[in-house]
Amino acid sequence: MATIRLPGLIDPHVHLREPGATHKEDYDSGTAAALAGGFTCVLDMPNNTPPITTAETLAAKQAAARLKARCDYGIHLGAGTDNIESAAWLAPQVTGLKMYLDQTFGPLRLDDLDSLIQHMDRWPDNRPVLCHAEGRTVAACIMAGHLTGKHVHICHVSRKDEIDLIRRAKDKGIQVTCEVTPHHFFLSEEDAPKIGPGRSEVRPRLAKGTDRSALRASLEVIDCFATDHAPHTLAEKDSPKPPPGFPGLETALPLYLELVREGLITIEGLIDRAVNNPRRIFDLPVQPETWIEVDEDADWIVRGAETFTRCKWTPFEGWTLRGRVLRVVLRGTEVYRNGEVLAAPGFGRDVRM
Amino acid sequence: MATIRLPGLIDPHVHLREPGATHKEDYDSGTAAALAGGFTCVLDMPNNTPPITTAETLAAKQAAARLKARCDYGIHLGAGTDNIESAAWLAPQVTGLKMYLDQTFGPLRLDDLDSLIQHMDRWPDNRPVLCHAEGRTVAACIMAGHLTGKHVHICHVSRKDEIDLIRRAKDKGIQVTCEVTPHHFFLSEEDAPKIGPGRSEVRPRLAKGTDRSALRASLEVIDCFATDHAPHTLAEKDSPKPPPGFPGLETALPLYLELVREGLITIEGLIDRAVNNPRRIFDLPVQPETWIEVDEDADWIVRGAETFTRCKWTPFEGWTLRGRVLRVVLRGTEVYRNGEVLAAPGFGRDVRM
Repeated sequence: MATIRLPGLIDPHVHLREPGATHKEDYDSGTAAALAGGFTCVLDMPNNTPPITTAETLAAKQAAARLKARCDYGIHLGAGTDNIESAAWLAPQVTGLKMYLDQTFGPLRLDDLDSLIQHMDRWPDNRPVLCHAEGRTVAACIMAGHLTGKHVHICHVSRKDEIDLIRRAKDKGIQVTCEVTPHHFFLSEEDAPKIGPGRSEVRPRLAKGTDRSALRASLEVIDCFATDHAPHTLAEKDSPKPPPGFPGLETALPLYLELVREGLITIEGLIDRAVNNPRRIFDLPVQPETWIEVDEDADWIVRGAETFTRCKWTPFEGWTLRGRVLRVVLRGTEVYRNGEVLAAPGFGRDVRM
Repeated sequence: MATIRLPGLIDPHVHLREPGATHKEDYDSGTAAALAGGFTCVLDMPNNTPPITTAETLAAKQAAARLKARCDYGIHLGAGTDNIESAAWLAPQVTGLKMYLDQTFGPLRLDDLDSLIQHMDRWPDNRPVLCHAEGRTVAACIMAGHLTGKHVHICHVSRKDEIDLIRRAKDKGIQVTCEVTPHHFFLSEEDAPKIGPGRSEVRPRLAKGTDRSALRASLEVIDCFATDHAPHTLAEKDSPKPPPGFPGLETALPLYLELVREGLITIEGLIDRAVNNPRRIFDLPVQPETWIEVDEDADWIVRGAETFTRCKWTPFEGWTLRGRVLRVVLRGTEVYRNGEVLAAPGFGRDVRM
């Protein structure tokens, strides 16, 4: 057994479903899943019910998180058509402004050019604007960020044309960062039948094998790994209208380690993408005395029933993964050991408080 | 009566409907309308039936134009998913590559980022790529042009957010040009009921009064005037599924002159946008011994029944316009005088031959 010690992982993109859908996840279960997966800090998305776009909805979410979170966390604010004037005032309390510009889960959407530009113009230059953008919308977001002087972060890049465009923008000196999910590194549309028609629904969709290969060949362009942990219950996923989204926190690290074993990145490259770059991009405080211990040789079979996420399933069901989190220490306190989450709800801290 | 002499006007954006829809216009009737409106050169769009995307369809269109055109003309090539490999080979024969990136008339469409980038990568740097792009797609096109080193020309800009974005891109030194139609300078959605529900359909749609005002306040950003002359028969326009588009060639100049009378541009500014800039952007040859004579004080009432366009209607029906073309001389030959088109079909020359 080879135990390695890594910094606590940071996931810049999770959906902990609170408020509004705590039957599938909440700050308690979601942060337990995070610790079990080796994540000591997660940044939570705002497409809740109600969406997190105002001081009131943000305060309610902060209160729930303060009571229930077991690991540290940040909250991304949503960009709606209703908060163009007010969003920037909330910037000090959040880790970024999230724009939903293409089809996904929930009603939080920004459709027109005008509201996109107005939001960017008002948002502070030193805080990122996270964009759910696919295809041509990626190009539009990069241009909008370039013209307004904002740091645009493209979420969950899934396709060859998108990562190629981001590479070219970076080569031209344009400020843009991006993230890729484990499922887009390891799954393609060919895996959908095995996962199941409803369960395989995710946005951005599982792409072609050539897209997956292109992402794997573009690691130097990819700033962050992000799970886009998006739990839905199996009943919902197997229904006639399955909502898009996969849980991901508890299967991410062994998949990231697989990229190292395949020689695509070094372990330092992994730490950059799962710790250092998210910390820098989202201006997160260092977590002192924080690390994880991982048995990098341990093979284990993924079983949704054994996970901490409330949704209790995973698109990687039955996969044999290599690398298992043994122990997590957060701010000097042992918070996870051998399958048991030791941190109590409320132990986690808001990175902006 | 004050007669002024102007250079022959150049319209970079017309739909002469040949081949495929010659019941509403063809090279004969469309170029007669052009001469009657003071245009000595028109650049024709490729969304025909079949679309002009191949050597064969281009040759057929060239043959029809050669036989029938009464004024000089250029042909824009269409960017389809079927001609990514071959379009650039046809560049020397055409005046630009037209991309239909948002909803409009006809099946010629380019939907994904990949084909947009691939077309731009292959297209010659010194030939413009014309984009039908609205809203966020404008931003995407400007970024795609910036990254591929191409000259992007945004067609028929209709909204405040779009012209503001183009201004900011130009201010940042990004290569982009644009055009605005007379109908977007002079009509807004408030005019639609009077024009009629089907007849007022146009893409981009008639916009808000604030958009129209923004275009009028942005003339320094607008490189070209373009009619987007897009005839459909009244039977089609008044049908349950009215196709979008207005004829425009025979009403454009008095509306351009109105912008001068309103003090928004000088007469030199008009000539830049209706002659010099289109010639430079689309690399058109100078037309020697070519001018038009205009009675700038003549008031006349617009009557669709009296127009040369085959569609025989206009959204400006009943308007009193000031400024009338008296005489057009093209390459030393009188081609129009006092309501009579004197040039025969076949007199017009292809600017690329």
